[in-house]
Amino acid sequence: MTSPLSGQAPDDPAPRPLGVAMIGYAFMGKAHSAAWRTVGSHFDVPATARRVIVGRNAGQTAEAAARYGWEDSSTDWREAIHREDVDIVDICTPGYLHAEIAIEALKAGKHVLVEKPLANTIAESTAMVAAAAEARDHGVQSMVGFNYRRVPALAHARQLIADGRLGAVRQLRIAYLQDWLVDAASPMTWRLRRETAGSGALGDIASHALDQAQFLTGRNVTEVSGRLRTFVEERPGPDGPEPVTVDDAAWITAELAGGAVATVEVSRMATGVKNGLRIEVFGERGALRFDLENLNELWLMEATGPVTEQGFRRILVTEPGHPYLDAWWPQGHIIGWEHTFTHQLRDFLTSIRTGRPAQPSFEAGLQIQRVLAAVEESAAAKSAVVQVDSTTPTHSSVPAKETA
Amino acid sequence: MTSPLSGQAPDDPAPRPLGVAMIGYAFMGKAHSAAWRTVGSHFDVPATARRVIVGRNAGQTAEAAARYGWEDSSTDWREAIHREDVDIVDICTPGYLHAEIAIEALKAGKHVLVEKPLANTIAESTAMVAAAAEARDHGVQSMVGFNYRRVPALAHARQLIADGRLGAVRQLRIAYLQDWLVDAASPMTWRLRRETAGSGALGDIASHALDQAQFLTGRNVTEVSGRLRTFVEERPGPDGPEPVTVDDAAWITAELAGGAVATVEVSRMATGVKNGLRIEVFGERGALRFDLENLNELWLMEATGPVTEQGFRRILVTEPGHPYLDAWWPQGHIIGWEHTFTHQLRDFLTSIRTGRPAQPSFEAGLQIQRVLAAVEESAAAKSAVVQVDSTTPTHSSVPAKETA
Amino acid sequence: MTSPLSGQAPDDPAPRPLGVAMIGYAFMGKAHSAAWRTVGSHFDVPATARRVIVGRNAGQTAEAAARYGWEDSSTDWREAIHREDVDIVDICTPGYLHAEIAIEALKAGKHVLVEKPLANTIAESTAMVAAAAEARDHGVQSMVGFNYRRVPALAHARQLIADGRLGAVRQLRIAYLQDWLVDAASPMTWRLRRETAGSGALGDIASHALDQAQFLTGRNVTEVSGRLRTFVEERPGPDGPEPVTVDDAAWITAELAGGAVATVEVSRMATGVKNGLRIEVFGERGALRFDLENLNELWLMEATGPVTEQGFRRILVTEPGHPYLDAWWPQGHIIGWEHTFTHQLRDFLTSIRTGRPAQPSFEAGLQIQRVLAAVEESAAAKSAVVQVDSTTPTHSSVPAKETA
Amino acid sequence: MTSPLSGQAPDDPAPRPLGVAMIGYAFMGKAHSAAWRTVGSHFDVPATARRVIVGRNAGQTAEAAARYGWEDSSTDWREAIHREDVDIVDICTPGYLHAEIAIEALKAGKHVLVEKPLANTIAESTAMVAAAAEARDHGVQSMVGFNYRRVPALAHARQLIADGRLGAVRQLRIAYLQDWLVDAASPMTWRLRRETAGSGALGDIASHALDQAQFLTGRNVTEVSGRLRTFVEERPGPDGPEPVTVDDAAWITAELAGGAVATVEVSRMATGVKNGLRIEVFGERGALRFDLENLNELWLMEATGPVTEQGFRRILVTEPGHPYLDAWWPQGHIIGWEHTFTHQLRDFLTSIRTGRPAQPSFEAGLQIQRVLAAVEESAAAKSAVVQVDSTTPTHSSVPAKETA
Repeated sequence: MTSPLSGQAPDDPAPRPLGVAMIGYAFMGKAHSAAWRTVGSHFDVPATARRVIVGRNAGQTAEAAARYGWEDSSTDWREAIHREDVDIVDICTPGYLHAEIAIEALKAGKHVLVEKPLANTIAESTAMVAAAAEARDHGVQSMVGFNYRRVPALAHARQLIADGRLGAVRQLRIAYLQDWLVDAASPMTWRLRRETAGSGALGDIASHALDQAQFLTGRNVTEVSGRLRTFVEERPGPDGPEPVTVDDAAWITAELAGGAVATVEVSRMATGVKNGLRIEVFGERGALRFDLENLNELWLMEATGPVTEQGFRRILVTEPGHPYLDAWWPQGHIIGWEHTFTHQLRDFLTSIRTGRPAQPSFEAGLQIQRVLAAVEESAAAKSAVVQVDSTTPTHSSVPAKETA
Repeated sequence: MTSPLSGQAPDDPAPRPLGVAMIGYAFMGKAHSAAWRTVGSHFDVPATARRVIVGRNAGQTAEAAARYGWEDSSTDWREAIHREDVDIVDICTPGYLHAEIAIEALKAGKHVLVEKPLANTIAESTAMVAAAAEARDHGVQSMVGFNYRRVPALAHARQLIADGRLGAVRQLRIAYLQDWLVDAASPMTWRLRRETAGSGALGDIASHALDQAQFLTGRNVTEVSGRLRTFVEERPGPDGPEPVTVDDAAWITAELAGGAVATVEVSRMATGVKNGLRIEVFGERGALRFDLENLNELWLMEATGPVTEQGFRRILVTEPGHPYLDAWWPQGHIIGWEHTFTHQLRDFLTSIRTGRPAQPSFEAGLQIQRVLAAVEESAAAKSAVVQVDSTTPTHSSVPAKETA
Repeated sequence: MTSPLSGQAPDDPAPRPLGVAMIGYAFMGKAHSAAWRTVGSHFDVPATARRVIVGRNAGQTAEAAARYGWEDSSTDWREAIHREDVDIVDICTPGYLHAEIAIEALKAGKHVLVEKPLANTIAESTAMVAAAAEARDHGVQSMVGFNYRRVPALAHARQLIADGRLGAVRQLRIAYLQDWLVDAASPMTWRLRRETAGSGALGDIASHALDQAQFLTGRNVTEVSGRLRTFVEERPGPDGPEPVTVDDAAWITAELAGGAVATVEVSRMATGVKNGLRIEVFGERGALRFDLENLNELWLMEATGPVTEQGFRRILVTEPGHPYLDAWWPQGHIIGWEHTFTHQLRDFLTSIRTGRPAQPSFEAGLQIQRVLAAVEESAAAKSAVVQVDSTTPTHSSVPAKETA
Repeated sequence: MTSPLSGQAPDDPAPRPLGVAMIGYAFMGKAHSAAWRTVGSHFDVPATARRVIVGRNAGQTAEAAARYGWEDSSTDWREAIHREDVDIVDICTPGYLHAEIAIEALKAGKHVLVEKPLANTIAESTAMVAAAAEARDHGVQSMVGFNYRRVPALAHARQLIADGRLGAVRQLRIAYLQDWLVDAASPMTWRLRRETAGSGALGDIASHALDQAQFLTGRNVTEVSGRLRTFVEERPGPDGPEPVTVDDAAWITAELAGGAVATVEVSRMATGVKNGLRIEVFGERGALRFDLENLNELWLMEATGPVTEQGFRRILVTEPGHPYLDAWWPQGHIIGWEHTFTHQLRDFLTSIRTGRPAQPSFEAGLQIQRVLAAVEESAAAKSAVVQVDSTTPTHSSVPAKETA
């Protein structure tokens, strides 16, 4: 049997590359493909081979394989994950398929990377956590793809907070604003139906925002008050007007363990804002600011020295000493959004090599699902505060310099 | 009897200047004094004379009179407002004194400008509204000093919204962030005691934020969910540690008549932010952005023309065609915070001259008090939504070009 | 005889306010009037009285007197400056009148503040310097109005540089961009005729830029290369098309004593830029950035600490500890362009009180005129480098905390 | 013989991928490798194969081949370019080697992409132009790698200008600021010796700035005034202090055909600025602004509509309709610096497929060399204006929608 830790049989003279099967070839499949193609040229990670890409439509999948450089294509995810030359399964399907594929892959001893959200339901998520925990005992890694943890500026921010540079954090303000649904005439899609998408902006982008709240502070959300809104209640479907059954926007006021308060506001109708994940963190001795549309910048304020010289400073996060940056270009030569996926693979492959558990774990993914569920419960109860089920162990302690 | 409309007896050959009595000489007194000194040199308004400034401490009040250019000083507000040469009473005292002074002045037929908040209680506010309504029937003007309505960029924003440039407004994001209480060792003051201040950040700065939400959209807040937090629960008082009994920060999710959702977040502990009243308005066809720390700028986005050329544009609000600006300097020569008070007087004096009711009226001030009360009620009920008492007539219709 | 130092005769029991005569009532007259009206209410300076405003047109001057609060108006500047109740002469006329008025006022023992540029010719400027030097021996103050030295952010910048915070300065980049002449159809004015205006953008705004280069570094310009351009060579005059005989834009590369290189680019045709005096200073250990359109901000970068945490930080120059700011409002409450004139008077009146020579002196004004003349000479010689006549003593040493 | 146009023999049933040989494996080799690896997955271009990478050090070159995915490595560039399976030669060596390699490759019928600057001398550049012209007659493409033409925001800017959106351009302000030489103790390198580097900031980064001036306007530089400066004249070498024989900074005032004036300021000592290629373009009816550190943004100002609503607007250049962007991610998901190289290959490969001459041609590269030479001549002559040799045909007309 192939050892998932090394990607090679114990006695092989030369290491065999880790074989990858990717399920899904749409937006996320394209982004993940770019990362698989790139990671080995820029980071010191185990060699990988893009064995097979899986999709429903044979022709389109074959075309994606050719375009993105996969050796083979398939319409049978089950067969693909059981291939002997496959060591890693990368799941980029819609959320409702995550659980079945991930659990089968883990049972087959394959490392699993699954796109966020972990799954569409708490039940599925819980089953995935159980499978991941069991597999972990056998050296099999699993990870959920909250790729914004791999934005260098945010990884740097997390480290600064962990180092105490802001003092105790009191307030976080997080907004994730997009505008692709502003036009009331834009058509119905599966993303706007509850049965396929689970939720709207809440699951899609508030999940990122909440993960950042927890990632940056190392603290879990303990209670929430929430409000949801569907501004355009009906959109043109293939057979005429169809009701939109998910939220267009969500507002969350959350309390974190330790007492900080975070606000999260997400919308797909924030006219003029394209992809604005904006984060502000206020601590006793300093503050931080970030915007995904300028993801190479981190703004740091320290309440030290004469007050006449204090202010937020723009750190251009492109120095070799910044997280992940030594792999890229000289200072000032910025990276793009897709690099976060390459960094994610770097960390995932490093976990596979070292055996240290990958982060964010399925447990972390489940914790986010629980927060989202609490938000929906609060929204249904006139925004009254709801406690987040806290049976999950806390998110994770902040490690020292994990990404440096 | 002096006619409050004209400031002169009907048969006078030359108009007598409108005499002003100002009650209070601290921070607001200083700002209002600068405005009274300036307004006549830059705007075409009735002439005024700074007759008397009133304070508790005779020596300090006399000093303030000399410094700020008032003819006389007094420690007796009642006597001052009844002087025959006084036509206008400008109330800059702490809120708990507003009602008594304002009501007596209105009954004496004097125009009244009162600093925000209108009063510390709904009962007092209601009494003031009644007195103002009665006085108005006799041509006596009254106004509450939400001076940020007179920021030219915000007056311009309101007009753009009224003109339909954004389409229907869906979301507002308003934050008012300051940091003067960050240090847990900073001492106790009257502002941190409930009995003197009424509330903390809520009444002081959320009142401005909520007034802007209503001013910009021309719509009243109808329901709110709120949360309050005191981060530093005890501060050094004159006789040792003393409990802080007001909020350091407040979070509000509000619904406006017509269905827009507004979030308001205010804090006195937003490390590194000095006076950040930040406003974003998202409509069906456009959006606006503003920050009080750069109050000469308005950012406008219109979702028209090719999407490849859309974006937020920075309008430097210093053109002669912008509200209030023809009175000042050539384009690009910015104005400061204090100019809002001069503009407020320009509008107040214009109302006195024309007899058109001054805005924001005491009714508008009461409406804000009701929203604040609903926030406190919600905060005490685990953030569950509370309806705002809506017996007040709506805020005001948006007039055409009122400031142009 | 009135003592120019104190504004009172030696034995007077109470000080007489310093009487002011202002010559000119247009744009600069309006700005200076606001400053005279304001300075005593916000700064601890000798009392002043606005005795008389002087202009050519009796009616308009009388109207300006009424509007801006001058006791009297006149069309005879000579008579006005010789009035016994006048101690200070503030000259806001076009440049070609500066020399005659200033010299006569100085000879009459009156303190003189003259708007920049000092005069239109080197000869006039030299005569003014001589008159100022002689008057200074009798305790009579003189100053040229480079008001941007009184922008708090720039005064703060100068102090930081003087304190060595940037190390030796290597490069300065200064641009002063406006756009009021963009439209080729905008009409001819006296500002576009060489005989009345002397020069175009060069004298009007490059003079400010060059003064800042010298003010910030404490070093004089020693040589320049220059280019001038008139983009629109003919404009509609009252009697048909008329040639524009001054520059629309100017480019200067300058060397400063000590070896720093400064570039100055000024234009009245920088489409979309209203009043952009932008300054960047690069030193061995740090850098600074400033833009007049956001004059309350100073951006400071220090090349200290880990490079991963370095960056330009935005200092909001509104703290009580910043130059001039303790006179105004709490932190974060910004000031405007006109405040620079109030600060200028504060410093001028302080010099009158203390007897310390006012800065910038007429000598400093002459030095700028010499640089401008060298630029014109270079421009006429295909941009070949021209030395600046250096018989003038150096600009001024940077004093310790002069404005604090 | 392999047809350079198609990459395949005429009768082949299936096209053979175009084989690539890359000479050089350092910084530029790494960036070009990433582009060769990526271009086919995101753009519709002829297939390519990374046949061989060439360097001096056999071990390091083999390592680079493995890391960056080249099939083979070599230390013999001559042999590599003559390989039958090689159709394209990509030259990433230092400039003094460009001419020999490029000319030999062109003679061998291979398409040539050469990094900027075209060469270190006018003589070499001229020879290269001749070789390219001859090869072009045989369908062989050549191009010089001014990759910033492929920044989507700049390609978009060029199109807007070509479409007349700014009207006639009057002024350009271009700065390219870096700070990697600020520390006077940083050691000597080959880049600081004239014999190896040709020049300093002038050739390295002013070449980009000047290319942009010409690219954006479609006009050639016709005359220049220049100044050069070496701030740190001696740096630690391997055998003790060694003189720096190239410039640290350069200042250029240039005139373009048609009368626009451009300033170019470049420096490697601009403390705190990492990679700031900043461009401003002012036209009769509009203006543009750009900064390479935020390369996904273009700021556009149009002097149309009411002046009260004009301003620079931030276009986030990430829409599918923006140049090159339909190949990447949804709007708001930004790209990085390295993408410019991928875009460059897209355009180069498209020229190979279509036979349309690639831009920027070697002629365009030579034109830049002539401008640089004129700058050096002017700098040696006290900045007196020098005409640029204009025997070269003008740069290129601006094509309609070439990149769309």
